[in-house]
Amino acid sequence: MIGVFDSGYGGLTVLKDLLNRLPAYDYLYLGDNARAPYGARSSDVIYDFTLQGIRWLFESGCVVVVVACNTASARALRPLQQQYLLTHFRDRRLLGVIRPSAEALACIPVGDVSSLPQSGITGKVGILGTRETVRSESFLLELAKLAPNLEVYQQECPLWAPLVENGELTGAGTEWFVQRDLGALLSQSRSLDRILLACTHYAALGPIIRHYLPAEIEVLTQPPIVAERLADWLVRHPEYETRLGKGSGRTFVTTDDAGSFADIGQRILGIEIQCEKVSVSETALP
Amino acid sequence: MIGVFDSGYGGLTVLKDLLNRLPAYDYLYLGDNARAPYGARSSDVIYDFTLQGIRWLFESGCVVVVVACNTASARALRPLQQQYLLTHFRDRRLLGVIRPSAEALACIPVGDVSSLPQSGITGKVGILGTRETVRSESFLLELAKLAPNLEVYQQECPLWAPLVENGELTGAGTEWFVQRDLGALLSQSRSLDRILLACTHYAALGPIIRHYLPAEIEVLTQPPIVAERLADWLVRHPEYETRLGKGSGRTFVTTDDAGSFADIGQRILGIEIQCEKVSVSETALP
Repeated sequence: MIGVFDSGYGGLTVLKDLLNRLPAYDYLYLGDNARAPYGARSSDVIYDFTLQGIRWLFESGCVVVVVACNTASARALRPLQQQYLLTHFRDRRLLGVIRPSAEALACIPVGDVSSLPQSGITGKVGILGTRETVRSESFLLELAKLAPNLEVYQQECPLWAPLVENGELTGAGTEWFVQRDLGALLSQSRSLDRILLACTHYAALGPIIRHYLPAEIEVLTQPPIVAERLADWLVRHPEYETRLGKGSGRTFVTTDDAGSFADIGQRILGIEIQCEKVSVSETALP
Repeated sequence: MIGVFDSGYGGLTVLKDLLNRLPAYDYLYLGDNARAPYGARSSDVIYDFTLQGIRWLFESGCVVVVVACNTASARALRPLQQQYLLTHFRDRRLLGVIRPSAEALACIPVGDVSSLPQSGITGKVGILGTRETVRSESFLLELAKLAPNLEVYQQECPLWAPLVENGELTGAGTEWFVQRDLGALLSQSRSLDRILLACTHYAALGPIIRHYLPAEIEVLTQPPIVAERLADWLVRHPEYETRLGKGSGRTFVTTDDAGSFADIGQRILGIEIQCEKVSVSETALP
C-alpha cells in the first residue's frame, strides 16, 4: 500500500490528487486528528507524533509513505529518513511534500534529477506556511540546494489553519487575517513571480488569497505537484513500485472520531468512505 | 499537593487566583500542551486525554486535582468521578470548574450548599464556550439542578481559543469574530443579566468582549470564582485539607517544550517558574 500521513484532514487534499493521478494503487490514509494541528508544537513533539504515525503505517504494510503535512515534513522527515528508517524499516521509503514543492517552485521539470544545483534559475518566489514550517527553514534549505540564485521570501500565517479547521472559509474576519499576512509577504517583495501555499489547509482559502494578490503572481498548491512527482518517482523506482498493491483499495483511519472523519473526508474526496479509529501512541517510542 | 490540570496555558489563569487566594498550599500544574486545544475533539478523546493527565497527577502525589479546563470538565469529569476514581483513587478528589461557575452564575452565595434547588432564582444568563463545552450541555444540566427557573442561553465561540493561543488579542480580525459571536448570543436574548466566559482563554479577550456588550450586562470570569469556592470547599472538607502540603511549593510540568512553557507561564503568573517536560500517554488506558 501507499500510506498517506497527515496531522488531520489537510492531507486528504493531497490524497484526492493521488487518487486521480494514480488510481490503481491501494492507499491507507492516517489522520492524527486527536492531536492536530501540529503547526505550533515543538520540534520534538512533532517528531514524536510523526514517528508514531509513520511507524503505524509501516507496521500496517505500507511500502511507501507520503508525509502529506508540511509541518511534519519540515520538522521530522529528514531525521526519520536518516535514523529511524535505516534501523527499523530499511526496505521502505518515506517521502515528504517539501522537496517536490520546492522543485515546482523553482520550475524544475518533473523527472529532471540530473543537473542540480541549477544556478541559471533566477526570480523571486514566496512561501506561506505555519509557524513551524517557516521557522524550520526547510524550504530555504531545499531551494538553496536546487536553485541557489532564486530569491525566496517566507511568511508565517499562524491563524489560517485554525480558520480552515473551524470552517471559517469566508467572512470579513477571515479576509482580514488573509489580507494581513499576504500584505506582510508582499512588503518583503512586491515583484514575486509565484507563491506556494505550503500548508495543505490553505487551498481552502484559495479564492480569498487569489483576490488579495496581484493578478500576475502565480499561486501554486501542493496536491497536483505531489501527485505528478510521485508518479514520476514510482516510474524511476520499480524496486518499490512493483511491491505496491494495485487493487484500488482505499482505507481510512483516524485517531479521533471515525464518523466525523468519514463525513468530512467524503466532502473533500467526493467519494463514500469508511473510517476506523485507531491508537498510534500507546507504545513507548524507541 | 493540589494538582491543576489543563489542556495548555489557560488553566494558569485559574492557578494565578489560587496562588493569591490560597498561597500556603503546594501546587503541581500539568499542561497537556502537546495535544491542546481540546475544544473541538470528540468526547472519547477528551475523556482519554483527561484521564491520562489526572492519573499522572494522582500518581505524582496530588490529593485534590482541579480540572481547570472547561472542555475537560464538561466531557470527562462526571464519568471520571463516578467510575475511574472510585476504582483507582478512592481517597482523592477531582473537582471541575463548571459546578462552581454555575453557582456563581446563579448568584448562589459561597458555602450555601443547604437548600438546592433554589426555585426562587430567576433572571437571564449567557454562557460563552468552546464547541464541546456548549454541546455537552454541562452548564445547562448544572443550572437546571441549582436554579431551575433561571433562563440560560449558550453560544459557541470556536475561534476564540485559537485566537488567544496565537496571541491575536487585538486587531480588526479578532474584533470581528468576537463581535459576531456576541451578536449571536444577544440575538437569543438582549436582556441578559450576566455572562460567563466559560473557557479559561477568553479572559485574554476581556477588553474587546466588554466593548461589544451593553454596559448593564455583568461579565464573570472563572479564576476568582474557582479560587473562592475551592477555599470554601477546603474548609468544609478537612479530611482532604489536612493531607495537603503547605510549603508554598509550585511545580510545573508540560507535555510539550518546557522552555516555551516557562516563558509564557511567567508572563501569565508574574513569578519566575521552572518547568519540566513529561509524558503522560505512554501506558495503555485502563
